[in-house]
Amino acid sequence: MIYNAPVKEIRFVLNELAELTSVCSLPGYEDCSVELVDAILEEAAKFAEGVLAPINKQGDKGATLNDGEVTAAPGFKDAWQQYVESGWVGLRAPADFGGQGMPALVAIAAEEMWCSANLAFSLAPLLTLGAVEAIHHHASEELKAVYLPRMSSGEWTGTMNLTEPQAGSDLAQVRSRAVPQADGSYLVTGQKIFITWGEHDMADNIVHLVLARLPDAPAGVKGISLFIVPKFLVNADGSLGARNDVRCVSLEHKLGIHGSPTAVMSFGDNGGAVGYLVGEANKGLGYMFTMMNHARLGVGVEGMSVSERAYQKAVEYARDRVQSRAVGSPDPAGVAIIKHPDIRRMLMTMRSQIEAQRALAFYTAAALDRASRHPVASEAARNQALVNFLIPIVKGWNTEQANELTSLAVQVHGGMGFIEETGVAQYYRDARITAIYEGTTGIQALDLIGRKTFSEGGATARALLDEARATAEKLAAAGYASMASNLQQAAAEAERCVAFILGTFGTQPQLAAAGSVPFLKLMGIVLGGWQLGRAALIAREQLGEDGVDEDFLKAKIITARFFAEHMLPQVGGLAAAIVDGADSVLELDDSLF
Amino acid sequence: MIYNAPVKEIRFVLNELAELTSVCSLPGYEDCSVELVDAILEEAAKFAEGVLAPINKQGDKGATLNDGEVTAAPGFKDAWQQYVESGWVGLRAPADFGGQGMPALVAIAAEEMWCSANLAFSLAPLLTLGAVEAIHHHASEELKAVYLPRMSSGEWTGTMNLTEPQAGSDLAQVRSRAVPQADGSYLVTGQKIFITWGEHDMADNIVHLVLARLPDAPAGVKGISLFIVPKFLVNADGSLGARNDVRCVSLEHKLGIHGSPTAVMSFGDNGGAVGYLVGEANKGLGYMFTMMNHARLGVGVEGMSVSERAYQKAVEYARDRVQSRAVGSPDPAGVAIIKHPDIRRMLMTMRSQIEAQRALAFYTAAALDRASRHPVASEAARNQALVNFLIPIVKGWNTEQANELTSLAVQVHGGMGFIEETGVAQYYRDARITAIYEGTTGIQALDLIGRKTFSEGGATARALLDEARATAEKLAAAGYASMASNLQQAAAEAERCVAFILGTFGTQPQLAAAGSVPFLKLMGIVLGGWQLGRAALIAREQLGEDGVDEDFLKAKIITARFFAEHMLPQVGGLAAAIVDGADSVLELDDSLF
Repeated sequence: MIYNAPVKEIRFVLNELAELTSVCSLPGYEDCSVELVDAILEEAAKFAEGVLAPINKQGDKGATLNDGEVTAAPGFKDAWQQYVESGWVGLRAPADFGGQGMPALVAIAAEEMWCSANLAFSLAPLLTLGAVEAIHHHASEELKAVYLPRMSSGEWTGTMNLTEPQAGSDLAQVRSRAVPQADGSYLVTGQKIFITWGEHDMADNIVHLVLARLPDAPAGVKGISLFIVPKFLVNADGSLGARNDVRCVSLEHKLGIHGSPTAVMSFGDNGGAVGYLVGEANKGLGYMFTMMNHARLGVGVEGMSVSERAYQKAVEYARDRVQSRAVGSPDPAGVAIIKHPDIRRMLMTMRSQIEAQRALAFYTAAALDRASRHPVASEAARNQALVNFLIPIVKGWNTEQANELTSLAVQVHGGMGFIEETGVAQYYRDARITAIYEGTTGIQALDLIGRKTFSEGGATARALLDEARATAEKLAAAGYASMASNLQQAAAEAERCVAFILGTFGTQPQLAAAGSVPFLKLMGIVLGGWQLGRAALIAREQLGEDGVDEDFLKAKIITARFFAEHMLPQVGGLAAAIVDGADSVLELDDSLF
Repeated sequence: MIYNAPVKEIRFVLNELAELTSVCSLPGYEDCSVELVDAILEEAAKFAEGVLAPINKQGDKGATLNDGEVTAAPGFKDAWQQYVESGWVGLRAPADFGGQGMPALVAIAAEEMWCSANLAFSLAPLLTLGAVEAIHHHASEELKAVYLPRMSSGEWTGTMNLTEPQAGSDLAQVRSRAVPQADGSYLVTGQKIFITWGEHDMADNIVHLVLARLPDAPAGVKGISLFIVPKFLVNADGSLGARNDVRCVSLEHKLGIHGSPTAVMSFGDNGGAVGYLVGEANKGLGYMFTMMNHARLGVGVEGMSVSERAYQKAVEYARDRVQSRAVGSPDPAGVAIIKHPDIRRMLMTMRSQIEAQRALAFYTAAALDRASRHPVASEAARNQALVNFLIPIVKGWNTEQANELTSLAVQVHGGMGFIEETGVAQYYRDARITAIYEGTTGIQALDLIGRKTFSEGGATARALLDEARATAEKLAAAGYASMASNLQQAAAEAERCVAFILGTFGTQPQLAAAGSVPFLKLMGIVLGGWQLGRAALIAREQLGEDGVDEDFLKAKIITARFFAEHMLPQVGGLAAAIVDGADSVLELDDSLF
């Protein structure tokens, strides 16, 4: 199951669409340069192709639990060791605690390749980095000194313990308790579910970040605190001490990502797990939000990455498989199925959406870097608003489409796609979680229409649509008629929806919410079309230059045109459903479903 | 994992939309009546709910192969015994050989329930009935007398052996051979793959229908003959004789329908499997087409049935699961998630499409009955044209949507949807095969634009769109403004696409083929919307009558309106892609994917 990291494409998106040079010029990223990033991409690609991709299929067999101890899937422990030795864990970890402090934009490009190669594996570093981010921003210097260096190196991994059986995404319902002890630590008790890489044998220690309530905490989300609960306690000299009172009581039997053990974790079965308060009491939820942006962006990239891998597999099969005469040909000899128009339509559907998703995700990552580092406050704020608006779209759209795109990859394989040995079914199964965890698409969409659109009077939405229209004008001037007119029309439909949301959310929020997911998808399509329009214009310009890869640039333009002609027209139907269809979403009595 | 057969809904569609009474009045169906069908539906529902649904989940563990012998999944053999004793196998088998000779319309209604309850199980009778149909239409009286009574009873099951490893859907490539013997039988050799229920322990004998070539056969599809190859030879007195030289060499490890063993079958490893020619030599492919219509309609029903089961599960979860405050409510208390607008949108999306698909499938089944039995030749011919046109749409649209609708059911469950124990992931996996087997959606769509649209100058397509417009006028008169205008507009877009196909298929078939699957989906949506429009008008009329179920009828109208406001607007985007987007499907060089 070969994976070819699309380094040329990634480089194009980084340099041209996300403007890497300007990110490298931000304060604190002085060490970053296009040349360094090129080298990082080459090495990350090699690692993805050579180490992670080959063990992805065997990872599907899953980790195993014996008496509270989880053994990672075959080959994973060794791959982790190599990953750690190569220094990959700390790529975007803070430089002051042993990380490399690279921009989010660079990290996300490497993360794409690792996720494509092996989604289940890549969740271990992604979760670890999330924990690093939370600790770095909110924990005391003491705790940072103990935990960050060894998490940034990958010697220890990290987890997020949020969900409880009764509480799904509704963290107001969290019941786990933490009782203060005389020495300043806490004793944590409770049960957490869906803990990704909650227990395994790849690292010496596992640092759980756990949401729990203090005895006197107020009800709801304002009474949640964040604790560090290590699997092994850490002695004063930094060596590992006693086993903490936290254990894995079972592993979930899941539809996909079998290589990543999803644990039910029990804290305090024997009196209480020792934990350490991160930051202030009752502020845990806010601390979680700190890492939410990168985490949600990361999951959006996961969805796109699995689609990319599935696309590659489908292309390979479509080139090799000979079946049926060419449509309309008198010659009865079979041809490679890539010659069949519907196979091409499926491949172009995958290809064009993946390129649009990558462009939008990387553009968002660059905005994330600018939001946190830009020296001009107004620019930082503008970029923060972009991040806020774009993250739910990248998370929601990329992952919803991952279900459809990996399904197309199965379809290209015909009957062979349904046979597990073929391998493409694994991508279909693995992708399915991405639209669910880190906030379902419904949660992303509510966030998008409420805090990200209504609360700011649609300012960012309209600014982005203005940019899309400006690109459409340039496309028209360049002679790309269908791209120009379809993007203009789609932007106009999007405006209509923004106006509808602004007009309803305040007084009749149920009407706005009824079309929230269609609105998220609509914005994904419009903004994806905008990014591909930008890409086509840049490719057109570069085509006149010396030494360029003409095939690559021409393919970019064709792909952008396909997206404009096949995806952008879907916007009209979505807008109609959003603006004219809200009542019929809400009308049926609950009892009549 | 409860299943509630939607008998009231099925009865409404049978009686009102598919006009059961008129089907029962066709020659040869005199024994059929609304009362009898009611009784059949009640019993079929009981069997589906009480016997088949409870073993569906354990069926997911799969059948096992030991030394060429397959043991069906736990509970399946016993269920088959009960199914046989209840006489269900022969419901639509010819009455002159022990079947009950019920119309396709009645059979398809019962089959829906069995497929919803247990798709993997239901494939055994479906394949058996396909074999019965082929034998009944084409085999000699002698062969019929030996095989049909015991297949119609379910004492023996049947299979279809078409696919070979090198040949997928391209039957021109079939290589299996059959050599005539002195006694009039043949010795068959070759390997067949993807043989559903190819080997199992539920019945005393398995009757394989096998495509193979005679030694002097011409190349391509004109050299394929059809053979009966029983697992056990049948003695002159009807008792079972020697084991034939055919065996199961392996079972596929599949994404879904684990309960149905998918076998690799080897014929003639020890000299040749004894087979009997069905009908004339070299006419096997045509004979296969005999049963193709019912089989493809059946698979369309399978897709819809799995969606129905997934929908029921999602509704149940959405009613039970309490999470998060109501959108816009100041009360922080969690509510059942069915109150959340996006959950309702997902449920309505499933519900409305399932109702549209059922209506279209049953309408097609009634046309199938009229095509074969209508005493007026012109009416029979008109119905045959309807069947020809509608079958690829029902097969393709219902099954493509099954992927999406079962995915929505997973999504409604949030994180629990990804956990296999929840059960909904099984529906997602099971559904995935339906858009592949019995001809992929791409194959259906090529058939639709070529033989079913272009070859008849678009006559049936336009006749159906005329009917849709007539319904739209009635909807307007009834005050259903959005249903009327959206259906009118969708029909107009569909006309545009028909004109495009008629204008291109003859001279530039690649352009027509590029949009063939979007055209199939577009027709599914338009005709589904037409059927739901009809349903709404009938429901509106019945609402004035005494003793009707007002809730049921009102829900019908709301559901039709949702479909009109959310699905019909998608037609514009599809039409744009079909008419304006063909070039960009074909443009990219093969090497640049």
